[in-house]
Amino acid sequence: MRRYCLVARIRPDRAEEYRARHAAVWPEMLQALHESGWRRYSLFLAPDGLLVGYVESEDLDAAQRAMAATAVNARWQAQMAEFFVSDDARPDEQFVRLDEVFDLADQREKAGLT
Amino acid sequence: MRRYCLVARIRPDRAEEYRARHAAVWPEMLQALHESGWRRYSLFLAPDGLLVGYVESEDLDAAQRAMAATAVNARWQAQMAEFFVSDDARPDEQFVRLDEVFDLADQREKAGLT
Repeated sequence: MRRYCLVARIRPDRAEEYRARHAAVWPEMLQALHESGWRRYSLFLAPDGLLVGYVESEDLDAAQRAMAATAVNARWQAQMAEFFVSDDARPDEQFVRLDEVFDLADQREKAGLT
Repeated sequence: MRRYCLVARIRPDRAEEYRARHAAVWPEMLQALHESGWRRYSLFLAPDGLLVGYVESEDLDAAQRAMAATAVNARWQAQMAEFFVSDDARPDEQFVRLDEVFDLADQREKAGLT
């Protein structure tokens, strides 16, 4: 399982509504994420609109493709678009992946620590 | 175990050196983090210097206090200070916590999905 960090920007004036919508994501969406290979997926939000996603997956490219192919994702992203700073793309296409530069468990294993 | 997201900013012109330093963190530092209650701790870096930390802990306040009390952390943070945008505080005091707005596993459990 690999670890991934994704960042995007939502409109700060819509942050509270974004938060409320994410407190009760459609069960069909939760199921599609799971079946598409998303694990330990969490979203975090800063007051300025910075949105950070953390997710683990065997292969996030494949998990994103699988999710993009579902009908429920298209419906969800259409409703989320208005919260994002850019209107140029679907929200799920606006997330930028960051590089992992440190992982405690990996380095403990390499260092022979248990 | 709770999930936390922390963000800070490092100098973009020092990003490659920051990355190199974090590819081989001192074993004593790895051990102190573990003993202080840091779990699944990863750092991710954007080209513009945005630094994102993901960590799980029973209580991150307590884990941060325990870490701050170690001698190895003081040595490490003194060496890291020059990479951060602000010189006003130790790097480990510059991280801002973001609010979690979504967690897949939590919501799947609440929705009765297995």
